[in-house]
Amino acid sequence: MTKILTFGHQNPDTDTITSALVMQDLQQQAGKDVEAVRLGEINGETAFALEQFKVAAPRLIDKIDGEQVILVDHNEFQQSAPGIETATVLMVVDHHRISNFETSAPLYYRAEPVGCTATILNKMYKENNLEVKPEIAGLMLSAIISDTLLFKSPTCTEEDIQAAEELEQIAGINKESYGLDMLKAGASTADKSAEELLNIDAKSFSMGEKEVRVAQVNTVDIDEVFARQEEIENAINAETAQNGYDLFVLVVTDIINSDSKVLALGQHQAAVEKAFNVALDKNTAILKGVVSRKKQVVPQLTDVLS
Amino acid sequence: MTKILTFGHQNPDTDTITSALVMQDLQQQAGKDVEAVRLGEINGETAFALEQFKVAAPRLIDKIDGEQVILVDHNEFQQSAPGIETATVLMVVDHHRISNFETSAPLYYRAEPVGCTATILNKMYKENNLEVKPEIAGLMLSAIISDTLLFKSPTCTEEDIQAAEELEQIAGINKESYGLDMLKAGASTADKSAEELLNIDAKSFSMGEKEVRVAQVNTVDIDEVFARQEEIENAINAETAQNGYDLFVLVVTDIINSDSKVLALGQHQAAVEKAFNVALDKNTAILKGVVSRKKQVVPQLTDVLS
Repeated sequence: MTKILTFGHQNPDTDTITSALVMQDLQQQAGKDVEAVRLGEINGETAFALEQFKVAAPRLIDKIDGEQVILVDHNEFQQSAPGIETATVLMVVDHHRISNFETSAPLYYRAEPVGCTATILNKMYKENNLEVKPEIAGLMLSAIISDTLLFKSPTCTEEDIQAAEELEQIAGINKESYGLDMLKAGASTADKSAEELLNIDAKSFSMGEKEVRVAQVNTVDIDEVFARQEEIENAINAETAQNGYDLFVLVVTDIINSDSKVLALGQHQAAVEKAFNVALDKNTAILKGVVSRKKQVVPQLTDVLS
Repeated sequence: MTKILTFGHQNPDTDTITSALVMQDLQQQAGKDVEAVRLGEINGETAFALEQFKVAAPRLIDKIDGEQVILVDHNEFQQSAPGIETATVLMVVDHHRISNFETSAPLYYRAEPVGCTATILNKMYKENNLEVKPEIAGLMLSAIISDTLLFKSPTCTEEDIQAAEELEQIAGINKESYGLDMLKAGASTADKSAEELLNIDAKSFSMGEKEVRVAQVNTVDIDEVFARQEEIENAINAETAQNGYDLFVLVVTDIINSDSKVLALGQHQAAVEKAFNVALDKNTAILKGVVSRKKQVVPQLTDVLS
């Protein structure tokens, strides 16, 4: 039996890393030879969660070359492993829009418009009568807390909250106190270079004919990040020149107050002003109540640019 | 509440028509205002099934203009309603490859590599504890029989067979005798013009940069069809000229003996020879054991043309 690889997106976040580990467990319980791998470095928040539940990080890979794969927490090929076009995609479990994804054969694809991949995976354990071990519950709970910013994001659904309550019991921790500690562990920005900040959680999107990069940084102090605006703009311009982005949008999110400040650079700054009905001042604008890239940033930009 | 439309692909077959009707029932039981519609004429086989279970055909529509929609039995936009790009796709339930499909927002997407959409819909009734009425069971059973050619297609899985056995009980009919009658009702070719034959069950596929049309005709007498080869070739050439296909493949399938004879016309005939390891003679070749477009024709052509 050939080994099947399972992984999430580039610039992995907590949902992507833990969902690969959870999928590995789920498939192994079903008798399949599946290995969780990752496409990038573990961020501070995810490291905190793995440490808490004593689970090792997946193996790092840099490309795919004809393997059978299960994608979690993403589907868009430009967010996936280099060489993904050569893979046979057997399964996808995801909670994002579908775009730039295609297969030549039928597959198992499960997407639901919930806040977190882990919420869908938790259902799959129940549907298949499989056991959720405490550390697996802890990983899924961490993913839900991360993706919903402790249930405050507009992407958070009743199903996410219900799953978190179930998983909290199995994992044996308090979701609010653990969750705030975990988010804070990922919200430190002072110790990171501008390049590192831009790649904590960044994804590329095709919008109409445009290639748009949307990076997000969680923080407890927005001003601390923007004190370094010039350094960050230089890093954005360098990335844009290297990768040919038509627009680069950095969303800096205050996880305590649930607001964001956006920094937009590139040919299509006007699209940002139109999408959010704001005027940019020194390339920036406050986006009140915006915390979700998926629900409050990408669709709005896509509508303007398509 | 705005009405949601649900429909299958163009040139509708039995699975596409019945899956729209079944989805309408499933969603209405869940309190949603959903109407099944169709994108083309009802074929002889489907008419037989609707008559058997006393269910009216869905309303015919010719385009979509900004509605909320649920797609069944397809996802590729070129197989869907004109104007599908303007729709908000809320849900897809399908058993095909994914290609030329994208959304700007997350959605509910459920695909499984089984023989028939109805097999997935039958699961959804059970997962949601909804009642399967006898006529709905009859429609789902008809779809499974149609898509699996009475369980003989290589696309047929254990899940399809198990679903058919459950549905046979609820519908109160014998699946083998009913199934053969239904397939024969759809297999009459003598009463159809060449243009009608080409559109009983035809789909367009993007393969690499090529646009490929693959039509399938079920019959109990392959020779009866090929006695009209010249007339059929003229009709294919006219359709190809009008629509700019790079390749037109007609698969004529003997539903009793489970073989097919292929007729290929267009710039890329050589792709057919390579895909099936055959030499075309007068543009035709016998494909032993080939009955499934999805599993035995489209992936093979896609691999050669991509």
